[in-house]
Amino acid sequence: MKVAFQGVHGAYSEMAILGLLGKKASTIPMDTFAEVFQAVEQHRADRGLIPIENSLAGSIHQNYDLLLSHNLHIIQETHLRIEHVLMCHPSSTMARLREVRSHPQALAQCSRFFEQHRRLKEVAFYDTAGAAKSIMESGSLETGAIASMHAARLYGLSVLKRNLENEKHNYTRFLLISRTPWNPRSGVRTKCSIAFRPILNKPGILFRILGVFSLRDIDLLKIESRPDPRSPFEYLFYLDLAGNPKEPKVAKALEHLKEVVTHFRLLGAYPMGKGKFYGGRGKRGKRGE
Amino acid sequence: MKVAFQGVHGAYSEMAILGLLGKKASTIPMDTFAEVFQAVEQHRADRGLIPIENSLAGSIHQNYDLLLSHNLHIIQETHLRIEHVLMCHPSSTMARLREVRSHPQALAQCSRFFEQHRRLKEVAFYDTAGAAKSIMESGSLETGAIASMHAARLYGLSVLKRNLENEKHNYTRFLLISRTPWNPRSGVRTKCSIAFRPILNKPGILFRILGVFSLRDIDLLKIESRPDPRSPFEYLFYLDLAGNPKEPKVAKALEHLKEVVTHFRLLGAYPMGKGKFYGGRGKRGKRGE
Repeated sequence: MKVAFQGVHGAYSEMAILGLLGKKASTIPMDTFAEVFQAVEQHRADRGLIPIENSLAGSIHQNYDLLLSHNLHIIQETHLRIEHVLMCHPSSTMARLREVRSHPQALAQCSRFFEQHRRLKEVAFYDTAGAAKSIMESGSLETGAIASMHAARLYGLSVLKRNLENEKHNYTRFLLISRTPWNPRSGVRTKCSIAFRPILNKPGILFRILGVFSLRDIDLLKIESRPDPRSPFEYLFYLDLAGNPKEPKVAKALEHLKEVVTHFRLLGAYPMGKGKFYGGRGKRGKRGE
Repeated sequence: MKVAFQGVHGAYSEMAILGLLGKKASTIPMDTFAEVFQAVEQHRADRGLIPIENSLAGSIHQNYDLLLSHNLHIIQETHLRIEHVLMCHPSSTMARLREVRSHPQALAQCSRFFEQHRRLKEVAFYDTAGAAKSIMESGSLETGAIASMHAARLYGLSVLKRNLENEKHNYTRFLLISRTPWNPRSGVRTKCSIAFRPILNKPGILFRILGVFSLRDIDLLKIESRPDPRSPFEYLFYLDLAGNPKEPKVAKALEHLKEVVTHFRLLGAYPMGKGKFYGGRGKRGKRGE
């Protein structure tokens, strides 16, 4: 199965694909998120994997926009703790390093390490995995990289230090997208991601919208509003809800929702991911998995 | 008035400060957002300016976390359209450029320009304004930078091309923070930013929470939920609402809210910003400013 992702081999996205699909996945690097969507649409890839939100940096609106402008379906979700690893050429050592390459965001997330190692110069690089690759290619003994554990293994680099990041609670949630929707099965806890715009000029519209779900005891797992710069004074909403759109209760709620919103889109129904990052919970009124 | 910001002189944040406060502001660059908060707390700066959300990249949770962990107040908001400008040394020209430096996110946002100019090599740099500064310092005639118009002016560089970005609808919303709260005045349209956690184990809790506002005809301007990786199975909510916490209606709503949530924080009450990015509207039921 060919899975497209944005970045170069060794990227955190590729690590998420391998975690989700294992060895059956053959990964295809792309320059941009838009190209990931195109590759799936044009059958050059079977699936695409995109990051959708990060616990420090928030929702990636750009990928919500791409979900809305393409006719693909979310079929699975996964999350990855972003662990930054310091690595170097296998013939080098910590003492020999003079500079460390990585994406500026990764460098910034490891600022405490650099405060403690002032002799190391931070050098910005286009992406984390590319920084790792460049060390393998150049054979430099004075240059380290900050990237994923996966990149260290892939490029045969020595791991000098793990968990370099200041903030350990750094998770990214990824979505697997496909041309055909996932087929909900009974017994599999399912969630739906939807997007819509509330109808204009209705005071309390959000209260009505949430009533659609709360009056039917459907749990909301995520809600986010976003002013849309393309449509002045309009908001776009993203909601994740617990349930399967083929269940009568959920199907009726979505029909009811369409009475009070416009531009409704079901972005996908997929098995609820495991792990606390999803905020998933077991039975009503009882949190935890 | 001394205003701290994250970045170097010429950064988009500094441009936002000058747009908001004009010449009365003396800007102080800081390495990290946390240092911006510390500088204000420790009286090394009178104000701090932080980005809080971007129309493509979403809410900056890290700055919400800092607002929650420090006792500072939002007193003003502003937004800036992120216009990326290609610039070079005043003695150089477009034809002489071989490479262009900028932050990887800015380079990615200008990918269409690089597709049309394949001879130009993209070089990652720690920040956009730093890339501009480096050209002035090195005097290189073969290196361009992508940064703000403000950086071009500040470092005396020639502007080769404006609006280099693929996506024109790229806005960042910034907040001005202070040790003392803003004093709401009648006649000034005011908004409040609040954060809280819903009480656990209450089905339909979000519906109840929004009822607090909708039953009192208080408009919500932003709502976002975020699973908190630090507290498994708990959500943190951010809300912006139209109104002044000294108005009886709003004061009562906030008291009512405290009955159904924990960890309530009023992050600030401040004049509602102008411009479509805020999704602000005039009278009830009538959108537009």
